[in-house]
Formats: sequence, structure tokens, C-alpha cells
Amino acid sequence: MSNMDAFQGILKFFLNQKTAIGYSFMALLTVGGERLFSLVAFKCPCSAENTVYGLAFLFAPAWVLLILGFFLNNRSWRLFTGCCVNPRKIFPRGHGCRFFYVLGQITLHSLVAPMMWLSVALLNGTFYECAMSGTKSSRLLELICKGKPKECWEELYKVSCEKTSLTPADNEELKLSLQAQSQILGWCLICSASFFSLFTTCYGRCRAKVSYLQLSFWKTYVEKEKAQLEETFLDYANKLSERNLKCFFENKRPEAFPLPSFAAWEAAS
Amino acid sequence: MSNMDAFQGILKFFLNQKTAIGYSFMALLTVGGERLFSLVAFKCPCSAENTVYGLAFLFAPAWVLLILGFFLNNRSWRLFTGCCVNPRKIFPRGHGCRFFYVLGQITLHSLVAPMMWLSVALLNGTFYECAMSGTKSSRLLELICKGKPKECWEELYKVSCEKTSLTPADNEELKLSLQAQSQILGWCLICSASFFSLFTTCYGRCRAKVSYLQLSFWKTYVEKEKAQLEETFLDYANKLSERNLKCFFENKRPEAFPLPSFAAWEAAS
Amino acid sequence: MSNMDAFQGILKFFLNQKTAIGYSFMALLTVGGERLFSLVAFKCPCSAENTVYGLAFLFAPAWVLLILGFFLNNRSWRLFTGCCVNPRKIFPRGHGCRFFYVLGQITLHSLVAPMMWLSVALLNGTFYECAMSGTKSSRLLELICKGKPKECWEELYKVSCEKTSLTPADNEELKLSLQAQSQILGWCLICSASFFSLFTTCYGRCRAKVSYLQLSFWKTYVEKEKAQLEETFLDYANKLSERNLKCFFENKRPEAFPLPSFAAWEAAS
Repeated sequence: MSNMDAFQGILKFFLNQKTAIGYSFMALLTVGGERLFSLVAFKCPCSAENTVYGLAFLFAPAWVLLILGFFLNNRSWRLFTGCCVNPRKIFPRGHGCRFFYVLGQITLHSLVAPMMWLSVALLNGTFYECAMSGTKSSRLLELICKGKPKECWEELYKVSCEKTSLTPADNEELKLSLQAQSQILGWCLICSASFFSLFTTCYGRCRAKVSYLQLSFWKTYVEKEKAQLEETFLDYANKLSERNLKCFFENKRPEAFPLPSFAAWEAAS
Repeated sequence: MSNMDAFQGILKFFLNQKTAIGYSFMALLTVGGERLFSLVAFKCPCSAENTVYGLAFLFAPAWVLLILGFFLNNRSWRLFTGCCVNPRKIFPRGHGCRFFYVLGQITLHSLVAPMMWLSVALLNGTFYECAMSGTKSSRLLELICKGKPKECWEELYKVSCEKTSLTPADNEELKLSLQAQSQILGWCLICSASFFSLFTTCYGRCRAKVSYLQLSFWKTYVEKEKAQLEETFLDYANKLSERNLKCFFENKRPEAFPLPSFAAWEAAS
Repeated sequence: MSNMDAFQGILKFFLNQKTAIGYSFMALLTVGGERLFSLVAFKCPCSAENTVYGLAFLFAPAWVLLILGFFLNNRSWRLFTGCCVNPRKIFPRGHGCRFFYVLGQITLHSLVAPMMWLSVALLNGTFYECAMSGTKSSRLLELICKGKPKECWEELYKVSCEKTSLTPADNEELKLSLQAQSQILGWCLICSASFFSLFTTCYGRCRAKVSYLQLSFWKTYVEKEKAQLEETFLDYANKLSERNLKCFFENKRPEAFPLPSFAAWEAAS
């Protein structure tokens, strides 16, 4: 008995940490993906395309992850489904900005994965190094090549391939310096993102109209309702399809089947 | 029987040490994380960026851990939820500073992990070595380069990469000296942090209005109540969602369901 | 049957030796920790920081262990809880020094672990060697460098790194001599600490107002009471939380629940 209790306690503990486990898994996937990309696919061209190439590897996956985040978020579908037919739904009377509020929430949730990608990519430094070494802005060149020989200004774009006419030591120094800049940027991004997320969560909670306990009760309720809804759906769908098939094969008119009205469905969504 | 009792005793012992086990786990994670970072990600650039780079690796993870600590602390949410709607809640009449008291407590709890990170990072010494070797303050240079050849003043930032024009022995000495400073700082931090934590705990206990036995009774009570609350939540949520779904599919008006009023929820939080 | 009895006998024997097993475990942890620190983290800087560095490794962990000892001691919390509200509690009429007596007892108990650390660290000798080799006091230098060549006075701080201009034999001699001093100090510490602990225990028993048999009866009683108290706590907490939750969800006023008064709690603590 005591043994079973302990086991259940551990199981419950892990179920409570669902969100944390989900995010850890996401972080692991991001790190793995970044490793894979920078080893297999990324080869800095060391030509005039450096900047575009590096920035593409930095931002394109982030963009894809953002879109994916929108796709996988149930709330965005709940928001948009049927909004053309019924525009009142997303701009209800007197709550015109509710649409933008919900859209903002969805965007913030979808931004988690892209931010992770950017952080990991910047902490690794390969993409940034390639992107910056192709710069043509004289201000950035000034910053990077300070105290280096004159060739640096002209051959910076060859640094990542180690084909410059600089000494290997100077070349190595330039690379390390670029990577250091990338990592510093990465840490800045992580710090500000984490602070921003704490701030927005805090603000959202502050504006909540219910107390902490009530909120946790509704969380439990929503979970339970979702599970039961699925069951009921399955149940009703089962009955409905059975009836329809039976009627079809026996060439009868289907009997009436009680289903909620359209308005009720709308209100419930 | 005696066997079972012994097993239960051991189980109970470990359950009582939950906090200790949690902290040990946290310490282990911190040490592992620090090892990983300093091996995989950290490469001192040996240029003018040394200081910023080293400090970023020292303080940015600490900052992230602090934010995470706020996030994972239930009390901070209990404090902030609904505080804009009901400002009386966090600034009750006659107890204006209660908000800052609770906020301080939460901050102190959240500071544990960052302090661990800083201690581990300082005891390891890599980050501090890089950060200090990039210093430009003449007072610090005086301190570090005392009794060393003249090149030390100019090429200190190359010390961690061992590319100075100093002799290898001098270079090694400088590195060891910087690491020693880092470790001394680390021990100072650990000693003062542990003393401070004892002091604040002691002070908090001194100001408590209940006796030791009563306090331990309330601890037992709070744990029990939490477990029962979860059960009751699940039970009520189950009943409520069942009723709602039934009404929805059968197109009926839901019957009244007795739930506590808003004020009761507020008072209970 | 006899088999079971024998097993129970062994179990009981080990349960009686709880204190001894706990101390052995502590000693093992201390030795392991010291080994780990002196191998992984400790690198004598061989510069002017030697003394501070060595002393930090000798005393900082001892300080942390002392603080930890206070934290883990239930009696210190029993003493301090509520002492500001009710100063009479720790300075009762006519027993003004009782507070200092209990505090002294707690300190003595908390000193066990730091003493272990100091003994182990001194017996190993690495920390002391580093700390002493950085000394600038002429009296200590006189003592250490007696009968050694003149370089000893100037280059003693390089002894642990073996980079002095002394002959290897002289260097080795100096190191051995420092380590020997450390171990002698360690044995002195162990001997005096063990004598002191015997003395204080003896003195405490002498001042006891009960006989040996009575004392061992009280020990058994205290243990039994503690176990039963925990059970009663659990029972009462269970009932109380059940009542409160029921009242909360059914919007009723809670009935009265008989609990001991504040004064009774105070007296029992």
C-alpha cells in the first residue's frame, strides 16, 4: 500500500510538471536541430553572400517555428474558425479590442520556440560569425577590425574559411571575437526575453478578475471538461454514424437525432 | 511486519528530507550546467570584449535562474493574481508593507539558485579569469600585475589564451593568481550568503506569533488541506462538467450548481 | 521463527546505533568532500595570495558546515520561534542564563561537522601548506626556514609549486616539514576536541537531576511521544481540513473545532 502510494506520488509529481517537461523537450529539440543544421547544412560561402546566408540560417528557422506555433495553437483556430461568417464573434460589441488581446496572447505563446532557436543559434555563434564577416558597413568594420592589420578591412569575408592573407593567429582572434559578440548578444536576448515573459505573465495575472484558488479550480475544470467532451463526442458520433449507416442500408428515412443548435455550438466555442 | 515498518520508516525519512533532496538536486544541476557551459560554449575571445564576455557568462545565467525562480514560486502568483482589480488585497488597511514583506520572501527564495550558480562559477574560476583579464582600470591592473614584467600591463587580455609575450611561467602564475582570486571571492560569497540565510530565517522565526509545535501542526495541516483541496476540485470539476455537457447536448438549461461566491474565493486565497 | 527473531535483533541493534551510523556517514562525507576539493578545485596560486587562499579553503567550508548544523537542528528553531513576541519565553524569571545554556548546547552540536572538516583538512595538509607558505610574519619564517639556505626567506611562497631556486631536496624537505606541522596540528585538534566533548557530556550528566535509569526511560518516552504526536497531528489536520473545505464549497459557516489554546501550545513547546 505504502509502496503504491509512493509510486502514485511520483507519477502525480511528473504529471504536474507537464509544462516544464514540454518546454525542456522543446529546448532539447532546438539545441539538437541547431547542432544538426550547423554541422550538416551550414557551409559559409565566404563571398559577398555571407550576410544574407548567415541571416537566413538565423531567422528563417525562427520564422518557420513562429508559423508552426500558430498552427499548433488550438486557440488560434478557435478564434478564426467562422469569423468571416460571423464577424460579431471576434469584434463583440463594446469589446472591440478583445480580438487583438487574444491575438497578442497567441503570438506571445508562439514566440517561445523562435526565441529558443535564436538564443541557441547565437550562443553557438556559427551563423552570426558568417553573417557579420560579410558586412560592408564601415562602422561595423571599424568595430571588428580595430587594432588588426589592414587586410582585415578587405578580406574579412574570408575569415570563417581561414583563407585570408592574415596570419593564422590574427584570423583565429577575429573568429573568436565574432563568436564572443554572438554569445554576448545571445545572453542579452535570453535575459531580456525571460524578463519580458515574467513581466507579461505578471501583468496578465494582475488584471485577472478571479483569485488564485478560483483560477486553479477552473484549470482543473477545463481539463476535466475537455476529457469528458472528447468522450461524449465519441459517444454521440458513434450513435449518429450507426444510425445513419443502418438507415442507408435499410433504405429508411433516418429518425430525428437530437443535436445542439448552431447558436449553441457558437456560444460554446 | 517489522520489515514493512523499517521500509516505511526509510520512506518517511526521505519524504521528510524533501527540501534537502530538492536543494541537492538543484546544486547538482547547477554544477553540471556550469561544467557544460565552460567546456562547450565558453571560449574567451582574448580581445577587448573579455570583460563583457566573462561577465555575461557569470551573471546572465544567474539572472535567468532568478526569473525562473519567480515563475516556479506559487506564492508569487497567489500574490499577484487579481491585484489590479482589487488593490486592497495586496495593500490591506493598516498592513501597507505586507506586500513588500511577501515580495521580499519570494525574492529571497528565488535567490537560492542564482547564488548557487555564482558560487559554482566563481569556484571554477574560468569566467572570472576571462572577465578580469580584460580590465582597463589601472587600479585593478596594479593589483594583478604587481611584481610582474612590464608586458603584463599591456597584454593581460591575452593571458587566458596563453599568447602573451611573457614567459610561460609568468603566464601560468598570472592565470593561477586570477583563479585564486575568483575562488576566494566564491568562498566569501558562499560564507556570507549562508550566514545571511541563517540570519533571515532566524529573524523570521523570532517574529512568528506562534510556538514551534503549533507551527509544525500548521505545516501538517497545510499539506493535508492542499491534497484534499485537489481532490475536491477534481470531484467538483467532474460533476460540473458532466452537468454542462449533458445540458449542452440535450439542449436544456443547466440547473443551478452551488459554488462558493467570489468573495469567499478571495478570502480563501 | 528464530530466523525472524535474529533479523529483528540485528535491525534493532542498528536502530540503536543510529547516532553512531549518522556520525560515521558524516565523517565519510567530510573525507570525500575534502578529497574532491583538494583534487578538483584547489590550486595553490604560489603568489602573494597564498595565505588568504589556503585559509579560505580551510575555514570557509567549516563555516558553511556550522551554519548548516544550526539549520538542521530542530532545537534551535524550537528556541527561536516566537521569541520576539514573547521574550519571557527565552529569558524566564530566575533562569536568565537558560537561553545561553541552550544556545551553547546547540552550538556544541553544530560544531561536530566543522571540527571533522578541519581535522580531515589538516591531516591531509594541502591547505595548510599553501596557507603557511605565503606567510610574511618574520617569526613564522624563522620557524619554518631554520637551517635552510637564504632563498627560503624570499621564495617560500613558491614552495608548493616547486618553482623555487632551492635544490629539489631542500624544496621537498620544506614541503614535508609544512605537511608534518599540519598533521601535528590536526592531531592536536582531534585530541582536544574529543576530550572537550567527553568533558562537557560528563559535566552535563553530573548536573542532571535524575538518575541514569530515569534518563534512559525519558529518552524512550520522548521518542514514543514524538511518534504519537505526529500521528495525532495528521489526524487532527485531516479532520480540520475536511471540515473547512466542506464549509467552503457549501457556503456554510464552519462549526467550532476544539483546538488547544495558544497558552497551551506555548507551554508544550
